[in-house]
Amino acid sequence: MKLVRYGAKGAEKPGLIDKSGQLRDLSAQIRDLDGEAYAPAALAKLAALDTSKLPAVDGKQRFGAPVTGISKFVAIGLNYSDHAKETGSPIPTEPIFFIKANTSLSGPNDAVEKPRGSTKLDWEVEIAAIIGTRAKYVSEADALNHVAGYCVCNDVSERNFQQERGGQWTKGKSHDTFGPVGPWLVTKDEVPDVQKLGMWLDVNGQRRQTGNTSTMIFSMAKCISYVSQFMTLLPGDIVTTGTPPGVGLGMKPPTFLNVGDVVTLGIDGLGEQRQEIIAA
Amino acid sequence: MKLVRYGAKGAEKPGLIDKSGQLRDLSAQIRDLDGEAYAPAALAKLAALDTSKLPAVDGKQRFGAPVTGISKFVAIGLNYSDHAKETGSPIPTEPIFFIKANTSLSGPNDAVEKPRGSTKLDWEVEIAAIIGTRAKYVSEADALNHVAGYCVCNDVSERNFQQERGGQWTKGKSHDTFGPVGPWLVTKDEVPDVQKLGMWLDVNGQRRQTGNTSTMIFSMAKCISYVSQFMTLLPGDIVTTGTPPGVGLGMKPPTFLNVGDVVTLGIDGLGEQRQEIIAA
Repeated sequence: MKLVRYGAKGAEKPGLIDKSGQLRDLSAQIRDLDGEAYAPAALAKLAALDTSKLPAVDGKQRFGAPVTGISKFVAIGLNYSDHAKETGSPIPTEPIFFIKANTSLSGPNDAVEKPRGSTKLDWEVEIAAIIGTRAKYVSEADALNHVAGYCVCNDVSERNFQQERGGQWTKGKSHDTFGPVGPWLVTKDEVPDVQKLGMWLDVNGQRRQTGNTSTMIFSMAKCISYVSQFMTLLPGDIVTTGTPPGVGLGMKPPTFLNVGDVVTLGIDGLGEQRQEIIAA
Repeated sequence: MKLVRYGAKGAEKPGLIDKSGQLRDLSAQIRDLDGEAYAPAALAKLAALDTSKLPAVDGKQRFGAPVTGISKFVAIGLNYSDHAKETGSPIPTEPIFFIKANTSLSGPNDAVEKPRGSTKLDWEVEIAAIIGTRAKYVSEADALNHVAGYCVCNDVSERNFQQERGGQWTKGKSHDTFGPVGPWLVTKDEVPDVQKLGMWLDVNGQRRQTGNTSTMIFSMAKCISYVSQFMTLLPGDIVTTGTPPGVGLGMKPPTFLNVGDVVTLGIDGLGEQRQEIIAA
C-alpha cells in the first residue's frame, strides 16, 4: 500500500493511493496515520479493504508527511562511503546518528525555509524507514520486522550550523521544514529489496546526486538494530539512513542553496519530492 | 503552583501540590499535563482554582515527569565553566546543544537503567524549563515569556556512548530512563530569580555536585532564545540547561555508576529526586 496524509497543513486526512494511482480517503477507517495506524494489525486491516469502495479524492492535493505524532526523527550520518569522503570525514566504523527536531518534519512538496543567517544550505536524498512495532535491543536479523514501510526523505542541512557551531549536528538539521518526508509511505511488502533502490536529486533541474541503497555502509537492518541499542524506537518513529555522494558541501567549489532554488528528488518505487527554497 | 503527574507509569493523572504540601487531583479540570495545559490561558485557569475544594490524594504516590506528549527534549552542554574544564572541553563561545530522545523522559524517582555494555554511566543535576508558548526566533529579552515553569532534571549520560562512539552526544543521552524530570513543575511566578538557585547531587549519600544557577555561562533566557534560532520550541518542550561541576567523568580517577547505586539530587525551591540504578 501507498499511504498518504493529504490536505492543508495541520488539517491532513489519511488516504491511500490505489493501484491505478487514484487518491482515496481513509477518514472513515482511521483517525490519522500515526504510530498506532502503522502497527501490523492496523495495517493488515487497511490492506484487507476493497479500495474501489473508498471515496475517490479528485483534484490536486497537497501531501503532508505520511506520519504524524512521532516520538522521534533519527538520522544516520555518513552512511555511504563516497559521501563520507566528499565531506572530508573518515569512514565510520559504526553508525553515527543524531536526532532531527520533530518540528522539522514537513510535507514532501512544501517549501523549505532558508534560516536567518544561513550560508550553507544543503540537500541530502535519503531513504527513511517508519517503525511499526517497538524496537529496543533488536538484532539485525529481526530489525526489519519492526518496520512498517519506507519513504523518501530530504535530510536538509545547514552545514555552518551543523559543523562550525559546536559540533552537535542537531543544530544544523532541525530548522522547521528541514525534514520533507513522503509523498507516501510504501509498506514494506511492496519493497522487495530495500538495498537495491536507485536514488537521485536535482537542483534547478541539474543532477546533483545519483546513488543506490546497495552502497550503504550499514544496511537498513543494521541501522535500525544499532539505533535500538541506544534508544527505544516507537511505532511511527522515523529512521533516515544517510545520503549518497553529490551534496553541495562536496562540490568543488562547495555550492549551496539560495532562495528561489528548486530541489527535486526521488527513490525507485517510493515516489518523488519537490521543494522550493524560501526565506525563513 | 506546583504541578505534578501522579500514579502508575503510563496511567498518570494530573495534580497539584497545595500550599500545605497536600497532593490534590486535577482530573476534573484537565485531561493531562501536556503542552496545551501549559499554555498561559490554561495555567491561569488552574491558578484561579480554590485548591481546598480539589480532591485530596493521600498515601504514597509515584510521580511521573510533570509533562507528557512533548515534541522535544533539548539539552544544553558545557554551560558551567568549571564543568567544561573538568571534562577537558574548551569553554563554549556560544551554547552547544543536542536532543535527548523523548523516550528517555522518566519519573523523578523511577529507577535509571544502566544500558547493556555501559561502562561510564554518569549524572548531571540540571535546571530545565518547560515551554508554555511557541518560540521561534525569540529574543533573549522575550525568552522567559515563553516559559511555563521550571523543574529539576538529571541529564543521565553514558560517557563512552556520548564521546567515544562517533561524537554525536545523542547516543549517550537517550537511553530509556536517562531523563528524570520533576517531581513537579514550579510555575515561573513562584521562581523569583531563576539565576539564583542552589543545586546539589549525591551518590550513595556522598555529595558529588554543588552548584548554583548563578554560574551558568549562558543564562536560561539566552539558552531558550538561542535554541529558538535553530528550531521551533512548542508548548510542553523541555530545555535543560547544563550541569555544574562534580560529574563522575571529572573525578580523579573518573568514577561511574553501578547497579545498586542511588543518586539523589535537588534544586532550591524545585524539589528533589532519587534514582536507583538497575540493569537494562
